[in-house]
Amino acid sequence: MNKMNVIGHSVARPDAYDKVTGGRGYPVNVKLPGMLHAKMLRSPYAHARIIRIDASRAEKLPGVKAVLLPQDVPQVKFCPVYFVPVEAPSMVLDFDVMNGEIVRYVGQPVAAVAATTADIAAAALDLIDVEYEELPAVFDPEEAMKPGAPQLHPNAANNIAKNPSFAAGDIEQGFADADFIFEGVYETQRVHTCYLEPRVCVVEMDRQDNVTIHVTTQHVFGTREKLAFALRLPESKVKVVKPPYIGGGFGGKLELTSMEPIAALLSKKTGRPVRLEQTRLEEFITTTRNPIKVYLKTGVKKDGTFTARYAKSILDCGAYATHGSEVIMVHGAFGLFFNYHSLHSRWDGYTVYTNNMIGGGYRGYGAPQGSFAVESQIDEICAKLDLDPIEMRLKNARKQGEPHPFNPAFTISTYGLEDCLRQGAEKIGWAAARSAKREDGPKKRGFGLAVHPVWVSGCMGFPDIYEHSGAVIKINRDGTADLATASMDIGSGQITTLCQIAAEELGLPAGAVRISSHCDTDNVPFDAPTHASRVTYSAGNAVKAAAAAAKKRMFEVAATVMEVSPDDLEVANGMVSVKGAPGKTVTVADVARRAESPFVQMTSEGPKPTTMEEKGTIVGIASLSPKSNPTPCAAQFVEVEVDTETGEVKVLHAVYAHDIGRVINPNAAEGQVEGGFQQGMGYALMEKIQFDPDTGACLTSDFLDYKIPTAVEMPRKMDSIFIETDEPTGPFGAKSLGECCVITPAPAIANAIFDAVGVRFQQLPITPEKILAGLGKL
Amino acid sequence: MNKMNVIGHSVARPDAYDKVTGGRGYPVNVKLPGMLHAKMLRSPYAHARIIRIDASRAEKLPGVKAVLLPQDVPQVKFCPVYFVPVEAPSMVLDFDVMNGEIVRYVGQPVAAVAATTADIAAAALDLIDVEYEELPAVFDPEEAMKPGAPQLHPNAANNIAKNPSFAAGDIEQGFADADFIFEGVYETQRVHTCYLEPRVCVVEMDRQDNVTIHVTTQHVFGTREKLAFALRLPESKVKVVKPPYIGGGFGGKLELTSMEPIAALLSKKTGRPVRLEQTRLEEFITTTRNPIKVYLKTGVKKDGTFTARYAKSILDCGAYATHGSEVIMVHGAFGLFFNYHSLHSRWDGYTVYTNNMIGGGYRGYGAPQGSFAVESQIDEICAKLDLDPIEMRLKNARKQGEPHPFNPAFTISTYGLEDCLRQGAEKIGWAAARSAKREDGPKKRGFGLAVHPVWVSGCMGFPDIYEHSGAVIKINRDGTADLATASMDIGSGQITTLCQIAAEELGLPAGAVRISSHCDTDNVPFDAPTHASRVTYSAGNAVKAAAAAAKKRMFEVAATVMEVSPDDLEVANGMVSVKGAPGKTVTVADVARRAESPFVQMTSEGPKPTTMEEKGTIVGIASLSPKSNPTPCAAQFVEVEVDTETGEVKVLHAVYAHDIGRVINPNAAEGQVEGGFQQGMGYALMEKIQFDPDTGACLTSDFLDYKIPTAVEMPRKMDSIFIETDEPTGPFGAKSLGECCVITPAPAIANAIFDAVGVRFQQLPITPEKILAGLGKL
Repeated sequence: MNKMNVIGHSVARPDAYDKVTGGRGYPVNVKLPGMLHAKMLRSPYAHARIIRIDASRAEKLPGVKAVLLPQDVPQVKFCPVYFVPVEAPSMVLDFDVMNGEIVRYVGQPVAAVAATTADIAAAALDLIDVEYEELPAVFDPEEAMKPGAPQLHPNAANNIAKNPSFAAGDIEQGFADADFIFEGVYETQRVHTCYLEPRVCVVEMDRQDNVTIHVTTQHVFGTREKLAFALRLPESKVKVVKPPYIGGGFGGKLELTSMEPIAALLSKKTGRPVRLEQTRLEEFITTTRNPIKVYLKTGVKKDGTFTARYAKSILDCGAYATHGSEVIMVHGAFGLFFNYHSLHSRWDGYTVYTNNMIGGGYRGYGAPQGSFAVESQIDEICAKLDLDPIEMRLKNARKQGEPHPFNPAFTISTYGLEDCLRQGAEKIGWAAARSAKREDGPKKRGFGLAVHPVWVSGCMGFPDIYEHSGAVIKINRDGTADLATASMDIGSGQITTLCQIAAEELGLPAGAVRISSHCDTDNVPFDAPTHASRVTYSAGNAVKAAAAAAKKRMFEVAATVMEVSPDDLEVANGMVSVKGAPGKTVTVADVARRAESPFVQMTSEGPKPTTMEEKGTIVGIASLSPKSNPTPCAAQFVEVEVDTETGEVKVLHAVYAHDIGRVINPNAAEGQVEGGFQQGMGYALMEKIQFDPDTGACLTSDFLDYKIPTAVEMPRKMDSIFIETDEPTGPFGAKSLGECCVITPAPAIANAIFDAVGVRFQQLPITPEKILAGLGKL
Repeated sequence: MNKMNVIGHSVARPDAYDKVTGGRGYPVNVKLPGMLHAKMLRSPYAHARIIRIDASRAEKLPGVKAVLLPQDVPQVKFCPVYFVPVEAPSMVLDFDVMNGEIVRYVGQPVAAVAATTADIAAAALDLIDVEYEELPAVFDPEEAMKPGAPQLHPNAANNIAKNPSFAAGDIEQGFADADFIFEGVYETQRVHTCYLEPRVCVVEMDRQDNVTIHVTTQHVFGTREKLAFALRLPESKVKVVKPPYIGGGFGGKLELTSMEPIAALLSKKTGRPVRLEQTRLEEFITTTRNPIKVYLKTGVKKDGTFTARYAKSILDCGAYATHGSEVIMVHGAFGLFFNYHSLHSRWDGYTVYTNNMIGGGYRGYGAPQGSFAVESQIDEICAKLDLDPIEMRLKNARKQGEPHPFNPAFTISTYGLEDCLRQGAEKIGWAAARSAKREDGPKKRGFGLAVHPVWVSGCMGFPDIYEHSGAVIKINRDGTADLATASMDIGSGQITTLCQIAAEELGLPAGAVRISSHCDTDNVPFDAPTHASRVTYSAGNAVKAAAAAAKKRMFEVAATVMEVSPDDLEVANGMVSVKGAPGKTVTVADVARRAESPFVQMTSEGPKPTTMEEKGTIVGIASLSPKSNPTPCAAQFVEVEVDTETGEVKVLHAVYAHDIGRVINPNAAEGQVEGGFQQGMGYALMEKIQFDPDTGACLTSDFLDYKIPTAVEMPRKMDSIFIETDEPTGPFGAKSLGECCVITPAPAIANAIFDAVGVRFQQLPITPEKILAGLGKL
């Protein structure tokens, strides 16, 4: 790999100042003249038939401009998830914007109001009279699967929305071959992504049904497709404005909800722009990581070699499938089985309807639930068989050069798992720690590790998922370049890293490439959503290709200026030079000016006119699919302190060693890892959406009720180690980073707690109450 | 030429409804949260030194947020005209945003205020105390050229800002060869383009000097370059948002004024968006068509052949050159000399500073002033020598296949002037009218004609003028396409015609291509301004090239679907088919879906997955310069009625025959022609900005003072004839249309008046007072 000028440097984020000062770019800050404010009326029942809705009192409230009822909303069922086509056969088509017959969870929208203020709209909701006929409800997915349980949807017998499975070898033979068999039941809870900016949209829908929407989204083209479908419009009638930034996404803004079409229809009804912002309580019931219960059974040889792996996973998708039908797939594949070799394996997955709130996407997308089970059970095996947890994992792990478990057409071209484990172990002092004597006293220390051995750099491979990116690059006459892309920065710094990729390819200084902040679905090429750890790799490759196209044109123009062949040119730091003749240079700014302007800078012979062949802005475009899907991998080490008197667990030190290929921006990468750990630690120790077991109502209404780790709870010491394998298919050797880091903290912490106090916890979150109960103190 | 499905059809304008209902797309309707309103304080003196400015009283007025004084504004002189680089050596670099030392016309900005309302800002202006030392002023350009006249600018001896000339042959010999010599002095007045939407901008400039501007402009990239220069910023710091439409331009919005940088600096000072809208009085002193006085002398043989043509033109550019240095060139070339052959010719042009208001661009750009002289004098020659005005013109005209007078590297590839004259004459009944007996009574009828034989389809050829266009085309999965271009529609329907060109090339139905309404200078390629009749030809060719690139990709994808070679495919009406096998088709929508989606529509064998090679949005991009500059040409015929008792002139019938190459949209073309006639008729008969001869103050403050033709004054009968030559270098055979039609009405009307009453008028406008004076009745 050549020395690089921009890649590998911690270029500052251009949007940092605006973001931390609450800039106007956030969709929540979009204000349009004449804008109305909308609120949704939501069902108080978990399962009920709607008998009658009377909005006449609400319509009379001064300031109310329109009430929207189910009969005003196209009644069409579809899959609202952005990364699949609406009509994708693998997805469950059960979602509707406002169902006029049945409500299936507490909080399902049944009506909406647009008024001159949000307070008036909220007051008007109380004046809408809805008569319901309550129906029996079910909240436990295993109960829901039993005969006689209330049935939520037609075509979903026993409430099973999806029932995927896969198998390799002969599972019975595998268990027969085992020296030991381990079994466990691992349960994860319903958590929320906790993006700071709530879902919000400002929508205009005109008389000709042209829709323009400003919205918090991870995928502008997904919003376009799904909103158009919900409104029964051709998708080109919908223009989604790409916000320059949003206040976090983490997978939680990957699908259409009722909000967007409701705001659009209210806009059409009133002839004015309509804004709809959800409260935090509404957020909690709009998107959550699905709880999954994993029955895991593993057969091993004495030396730790897996002979058989079986799992049954039951996913509670709540009242509508949304992401549930795809989360279960990622969970089975990447959470449970692609991770390690096993000659014999089998998995049965169940996505089950209940009258709980609906699920959604969340960073890791099914893998955290699986990894918690697998990485916990491996630790149980090591403890029982006295095996080294590092060697145990390496023994069963994938190897570089093997076929990719995900798609055998690819190979695992780079794979730094062993380096991750060795370097991470060294950093935290693993060997010494494992052999050290335990302290006495009420506070017990422990060390734990977990790995995530196989992950993705994008979604390609599942047969029905969008996976291509587009970019347009234009070189300006001041030597800068503009990059237009529909790829959303959802908080993790893609604006910066994509610009670094373009700058490196174009030979411009860091900061000379900027992402156009004013794009929409009309004026930039399609891009798949920001999800599945795909942006650096997939969008990065498209950006690099667009930059390469622009560079080719740049060299053609420069060649006529310098009277050499384009093949003889190279560019770095904004300067085009002749290879091997370092004195002969022209700036990129001059080349761009030459390409656009009718004359060049003054030369010693005076101004020289441009020839026709040279004229035209230097632009490059690309729209392409990735050629592979390389796997990043990671090892997480933690040191915890368990207070056996209070049950409190503190993470003292976290080490994260990660093979993400080439690091584009070290600071941004470290930020991703630390943020991922924060979410993973919250999942492990404290986060959970609570709901009333009788009514199904969400009891968690805001961040006073919902505890997330803050700076106070974070480890005093965190180390990020990057194993820089040089991925040949990646942009400048990069793979992906987004999600591994959120998957491993929970099992690593659980394993460390076991190391500290000798008690195994198989249900998240591991709260002080559970610790004390586990220690027999409650 | 093949039959075309979209070209040649009167496709309705997609923006018509929004425009006539005062849509939100007009820059004048842009409102941003927290926006302040600005007003400019203007000099009451035509020429004065600024001694002192005291804004302390204004700053204390409640609601005032900032006062901007000359010391707050970068003091840098430049050329604000959009179509040339700021530093273009051929332009005069005299303009400054807010001069702190000298004011040179009544109305020059000297300070500005931003306040919470426009009324408060206006009130604050009265509280700014400016002490001036008055200097002697000069208002007549011929006076200004005399020794001893007040000098306006350094480096402009005798106030001559520019003094171009050109010559061919030997002018003395030419006059010696003549049988007759004709001389005349032709004067034109100062008129305003009368766009309905005033100049307005809303600007944000942040702490990092990033500028975002919404503005009425004919050239978003020009605004970017000039505003950045005025603010001393790299141009990529300025983002100009392209408005979907503006309320007219006509050449009047082709340069930066003081407004934009003042609003930007007030925004930076206040940290809030600042809006500045000019009043109509401010409009009248911001942009006008320069008055030109032409001394024209022509030598002819008895048969009407030109032997010598000499002209001296004196252009009053007012206090700053702005367009004046380029208008004089177009005037000399296209207004006077490229029109007709003459072996011997000479021209001397003078752009002269006076203390009048500044000039600007206006449709025709110097040609109307020249054409009025030339076409009037030809009529005088014909009357004197009893020659036929049609044959006289054809005798001296250019011919198809000749070298282009503008650039001998090109030939006149298509040239329909004779057809224009013959068909126009037939339509108005020329032969019968000329031989008919004059009516008696006080109302006299007359017929007149004028031609504009050589015009442009863009600016290429002048050495320092931007002339290239860019386009990005993206095909959507509903079978529509989005066209992103920086080319502005300034009212003449380019949105529609460019989409027709793209639709024809892509084989889509009319209306299936839409122009993205949300572009800015960051996210679309450079485009030259909308001026010089260039859009259909130059931008049209770029759009066609981008569409061709997208079509190529469309065929590649379709070929894999249909299992044929891309070369065997054709597309029309949204359907790709195999040449010669009409039954084998696939829709463009399906091809686009196939390219983006992982699976296609269900086939008889079930859903068929897409291969990797097919994936990627179908996009095309182009950025290119025109390959030629074909000349449209036109003949104007009018019938007038002169009331010899009141002096009133009515145009009864106007016939316009025009070779514009292939007509893209007949309705739009007709609208252009009729609008052009309306402006030309106003120029001929009524329009004039009046000013106080002593103080130089503008007396024309609004449309009560400034008379333009309305529906009442327009001819009851208008005919547009299009001679559809098929220009080989044009998009689908098109040349240009924008400006010829505004050039010919004035001389045609003057000639018809002469025909009616036998009096020759050589000064515009030909008002009732002048008619009566000419008839000896005043």
